[in-house]
Amino acid sequence: MGACQSFREMCDREKNTNVRLSLPAVCIVWQTAMIILFGVFIRLSLLPFLSFFLLLFCTALLSNHIFLLGFQDVHVMIFVGFGFLMTFLKRYSFGGVGFNFLIAAFGLQWALLMQGWFHWLGPDGKIRIGVENLINADFCVAGCLIAYGALLGKVSPVQLMVLTLFGITLFAVEEFIILSVIHARDAGGSMVIHTFGGYYGLSISWMLYRPNLHQSSRLQGSVYHSDVFAMIGTLFLWMFWPSFNSAICDHGDGQHRAAINTYLCLASTVLTTVAISSLFQKHGKLDMVHIQNSTLAGGVAAGTAAEFMLMPYGCLIVGFCCGIISTLGYIFLTPFMEKRLKIQDTCGIHNLHAMPGVVGGIVGAITAASASVEVYGHKGLENTFDFKGKFEDMVPTRQGGHQAAGLCVALCFGIGGGIIVGAILRLPIWGDPADDNCFDDETYWEVPEEEESIPTILQYNNHVQNKDIAESNFTMESESRARS
Amino acid sequence: MGACQSFREMCDREKNTNVRLSLPAVCIVWQTAMIILFGVFIRLSLLPFLSFFLLLFCTALLSNHIFLLGFQDVHVMIFVGFGFLMTFLKRYSFGGVGFNFLIAAFGLQWALLMQGWFHWLGPDGKIRIGVENLINADFCVAGCLIAYGALLGKVSPVQLMVLTLFGITLFAVEEFIILSVIHARDAGGSMVIHTFGGYYGLSISWMLYRPNLHQSSRLQGSVYHSDVFAMIGTLFLWMFWPSFNSAICDHGDGQHRAAINTYLCLASTVLTTVAISSLFQKHGKLDMVHIQNSTLAGGVAAGTAAEFMLMPYGCLIVGFCCGIISTLGYIFLTPFMEKRLKIQDTCGIHNLHAMPGVVGGIVGAITAASASVEVYGHKGLENTFDFKGKFEDMVPTRQGGHQAAGLCVALCFGIGGGIIVGAILRLPIWGDPADDNCFDDETYWEVPEEEESIPTILQYNNHVQNKDIAESNFTMESESRARS
Amino acid sequence: MGACQSFREMCDREKNTNVRLSLPAVCIVWQTAMIILFGVFIRLSLLPFLSFFLLLFCTALLSNHIFLLGFQDVHVMIFVGFGFLMTFLKRYSFGGVGFNFLIAAFGLQWALLMQGWFHWLGPDGKIRIGVENLINADFCVAGCLIAYGALLGKVSPVQLMVLTLFGITLFAVEEFIILSVIHARDAGGSMVIHTFGGYYGLSISWMLYRPNLHQSSRLQGSVYHSDVFAMIGTLFLWMFWPSFNSAICDHGDGQHRAAINTYLCLASTVLTTVAISSLFQKHGKLDMVHIQNSTLAGGVAAGTAAEFMLMPYGCLIVGFCCGIISTLGYIFLTPFMEKRLKIQDTCGIHNLHAMPGVVGGIVGAITAASASVEVYGHKGLENTFDFKGKFEDMVPTRQGGHQAAGLCVALCFGIGGGIIVGAILRLPIWGDPADDNCFDDETYWEVPEEEESIPTILQYNNHVQNKDIAESNFTMESESRARS
Repeated sequence: MGACQSFREMCDREKNTNVRLSLPAVCIVWQTAMIILFGVFIRLSLLPFLSFFLLLFCTALLSNHIFLLGFQDVHVMIFVGFGFLMTFLKRYSFGGVGFNFLIAAFGLQWALLMQGWFHWLGPDGKIRIGVENLINADFCVAGCLIAYGALLGKVSPVQLMVLTLFGITLFAVEEFIILSVIHARDAGGSMVIHTFGGYYGLSISWMLYRPNLHQSSRLQGSVYHSDVFAMIGTLFLWMFWPSFNSAICDHGDGQHRAAINTYLCLASTVLTTVAISSLFQKHGKLDMVHIQNSTLAGGVAAGTAAEFMLMPYGCLIVGFCCGIISTLGYIFLTPFMEKRLKIQDTCGIHNLHAMPGVVGGIVGAITAASASVEVYGHKGLENTFDFKGKFEDMVPTRQGGHQAAGLCVALCFGIGGGIIVGAILRLPIWGDPADDNCFDDETYWEVPEEEESIPTILQYNNHVQNKDIAESNFTMESESRARS
Repeated sequence: MGACQSFREMCDREKNTNVRLSLPAVCIVWQTAMIILFGVFIRLSLLPFLSFFLLLFCTALLSNHIFLLGFQDVHVMIFVGFGFLMTFLKRYSFGGVGFNFLIAAFGLQWALLMQGWFHWLGPDGKIRIGVENLINADFCVAGCLIAYGALLGKVSPVQLMVLTLFGITLFAVEEFIILSVIHARDAGGSMVIHTFGGYYGLSISWMLYRPNLHQSSRLQGSVYHSDVFAMIGTLFLWMFWPSFNSAICDHGDGQHRAAINTYLCLASTVLTTVAISSLFQKHGKLDMVHIQNSTLAGGVAAGTAAEFMLMPYGCLIVGFCCGIISTLGYIFLTPFMEKRLKIQDTCGIHNLHAMPGVVGGIVGAITAASASVEVYGHKGLENTFDFKGKFEDMVPTRQGGHQAAGLCVALCFGIGGGIIVGAILRLPIWGDPADDNCFDDETYWEVPEEEESIPTILQYNNHVQNKDIAESNFTMESESRARS
Repeated sequence: MGACQSFREMCDREKNTNVRLSLPAVCIVWQTAMIILFGVFIRLSLLPFLSFFLLLFCTALLSNHIFLLGFQDVHVMIFVGFGFLMTFLKRYSFGGVGFNFLIAAFGLQWALLMQGWFHWLGPDGKIRIGVENLINADFCVAGCLIAYGALLGKVSPVQLMVLTLFGITLFAVEEFIILSVIHARDAGGSMVIHTFGGYYGLSISWMLYRPNLHQSSRLQGSVYHSDVFAMIGTLFLWMFWPSFNSAICDHGDGQHRAAINTYLCLASTVLTTVAISSLFQKHGKLDMVHIQNSTLAGGVAAGTAAEFMLMPYGCLIVGFCCGIISTLGYIFLTPFMEKRLKIQDTCGIHNLHAMPGVVGGIVGAITAASASVEVYGHKGLENTFDFKGKFEDMVPTRQGGHQAAGLCVALCFGIGGGIIVGAILRLPIWGDPADDNCFDDETYWEVPEEEESIPTILQYNNHVQNKDIAESNFTMESESRARS
């Protein structure tokens, strides 16, 4: 009890947000570690070099390019999509897009190593990376960026680096257990990415609960243009989500199906989001927060089942429900969680990622359990669910159970990992901002001073044709002095 | 006469912009209808599954991916391109990008059904959709988004949903007549998309003429940052227009030609737009409206003829003329149309889509009529103009006539359809804004309050190092009270 | 002496920024010249039309598409990447993104001709252009856009057109000498594009030195939202840089390697940029200028060596160093250059392009010189360094020397060309702005007037439910009159 008390006291010391030593130290040391580990473990994969068999060569070659291009879509989602989605706060746009950039750049390197050790370690102890690894690393980073959404504006960049280090590690272990040990299928990562990332972030947010966060409430909203910036993120995420869910599918049939299923899910979500947003507001006005976030919930929920035989109308139904659930979550659940459960969720990731992720996992389990040879064909069943090797005698119903088990593992890793990492991040050494100082770029960024007089001067210039600016400045100053 | 009078009176009742019941009702009901119709009609197309013929399989597979990627370019144009192009108004950015998103998400689903019934209905009464259908649905939606440009800021989201429902329906019929019955070629949709969409929007705008729109004139302009947002839309449209015009060409030769022709057209348009914009302004200053819109006119005009043997210098000439016509349109025609013809065209779609679309149709007719075996080759002529089956004995000169007929059909459908839909939209049940309330997001959106004092507080914080904010707030308030 | 004096006096006459005649004249005349030259020289390349050999046809066809898609990535970098990176100034966003658009659209056409004459002139005196030419034209334009970065806000659009005309010409000659005569390899253009473009711009800036530029210092900074706009540019450049460096590599192995190497370089740069930016600021705050620019330095430095066997850890080391060098350049070198060397570098292109470009050239020379048959294989060495035809008996060590010679040529062309073009641009006929009028869109653009009262009115409306706006306006005006 005493120890817990003193830990709490230690954690609640006065905050010092100066990260001048810690941030450079963390960046330099970890990047150096990356260089050393890459030197020991990472090599480039070589493409088959069959110049004699011209056609085979050409197709191998093209297939590689294709990967590269699907990869670019996912890459755009990670950096522009997630980055700009987090610019909605009136004074935390730099932090939103800038720290997103930092986390992603570090996370990618660490993910290449972690996933490499689990999945691609060759017999010579080297990991041979190709474009497929880069896509998987992007997926891995997405989990941490989702977690950042819950903490936006309340943590320091050093904390984010720590969150990423542990998040990627947990992700790689969890992914290995779900995909390889349990043999669940999760092409778009409803469970592996969204459920894990969502609950990981929410648990950390719960551990870092700030009872006096209302002291920063003046900054916890958007302004007109920051909402438009966030729409850039929303649209790039929305457009490229079909590529995200289909990027690592079995090529051909499965990939085709995953892309179109996701596309239909997303289209349906937009309409119900608009409906619910309008229905629950005075005068039927739409709320930009719902349009920016809930319209994407369909993509999250389509993650697991996207490559299965979810019929087109099935996709529309999933999207229909997700738009409703997610928007209602923003209206009722987020305030409830903040007041009662002491979970402060800046971006509402519970409504955008965690809840739809669980929905996606359940839909995936049901769809898998109800798969039949009549619908998929023998070959199709084998390809879709990868009933090969050790799992040759698997049947769809059992696969459904494995899917459900995968969802539980993702939940456990998210919540458990989040509590542990949250405890680490409560230590008073990370330079996080004080409660009255959250959601404010001033803390970690050199913010340009707003010169209020500029627009006035410009208008003035308009009339006097750019003459005597110094004089006009002087006049204005004396005028304002005269007034007061 | 009396009936007409009373209709007019009924239409001009006091406006009630509360869409709290109508918007959710329309969204939920139509989305439910989509689910049912998709359940009855839509199935996924299956890819050929030729695992024995490895190479054939590979190429089929790749070809599918390729489609998927060309599709992403068009998708970016629809959502980011059109969406952000419409954010230029100082207080209608939410409506520009948000309603664009809503229309497109609904329109895509309805277009899949409508186009499916006309073109892809299988013998079993099912429509099997693949990526090609998604591209065509995007094209279909583009027509409605163009029409929205003329009405931007003057209509309610419910009206937009109605406009889209009828617009997609008209588009599908018109497209079927032009491409299948008349057998005109229109790869980039100069006629089918731009001429139709442009005149559809302009006719509706004429029907919804607001004599007292000047009451909203304080909001009918841009601010500095909203113009920069619009440039995002312009650039994404400009860059991906070659993909738009070549997306559904005959693969290979035609697609290659369409992309490069469009590219050259667009490059040339930029220079003449800048020239005319500077020439007709006092002091030679450039107008952002022209740069945002007229630079794209070349892509519209290249739509029909893009896949034909328009020589590279021919493309430059088309672009050269379009830049001039479109910019002059903004300077002289738009004000004239508003004053004399009672057509209020917010985005100037007459200059960007309607006029260049007609130019494109005419260029297409001329180029088709002057095609010869010497230039195209026998095989090339057959492939480019699809002289197959029923049209085996077609000759280029007659094809030119068919092209001209296609243009007329597009014009008739646009103007006729627009007048009918405009009459429907004049009914006083759609929640459209009053004349003094147009171009204002306040009507349909929860707009964040601008806290004017924030920047000042921030600067202050800068000095006092984030202490005593409550106190400083108090001081400032008392200060301002003291002043007044 | 007297002549020089009188030249200087002539150049320093009072400025007239009216470009109403010169800008349209330049645009129209040059565009007309392009049409004529395209008519004489440019034809579309025909794709092989082997409908009998189905598979060969398919792959040729696909390969063309692939090019088209890699091309789109580079295109996005040129128009959105470079364009938005230059929007960071508080009142020069129109000029940044708008003139970037103008230069690029003109430059592309001129580059197609210039590069065509050097590399693709057929025996019939025609240049047959395909997508590969378009990518090369984009590269060519990049050099001029880099140069624009140094001059941002200080030159007129007419000067930019002249800069582009000469820049493209010099680029084509320089590229021909480096790649074809000297036989240096430079896939991503560290030397050809970045070193040349950087020093070309810096030399021009030196020739156009403005001793009284501090008179515009009030506008030589960013505001909050302009910095977020610039991040759009940064992220699109960062994401697509792997495509840029690999776009014209030998297909297959080399391209794959170039993309992944660049990717790793860039990831590493982000971390060291953050570290140095934080370390050298008071309170460890990050500077947005560094995040926007220095994070890209790794991509520049990876340009030459990207397709060589730079091991993954080697890439991380190159990125590590470049992040440090570039950020330190912004902190120490840019102020020094402005004060002592009289080079005013608005965007800091010396730190982002020139210096990392030279580093890239040196890294390329060392990597080439140390290439061995053991690492590359016999075939690999021949493919990577193109030891064919005239250069069949080349050895890696000599290739290293050729690389170094290439770097010197790029430097000479950049500095020499820049001084000559700078002298031409000093003539007082180009309509450049006066020293107290730089970095201001007012000079060349119709800038929308900021209506300061709008947000207040909007808030007011919020309460009175959109009634009686005219009245409220009147009240406010009388109120403010009463106050004063």
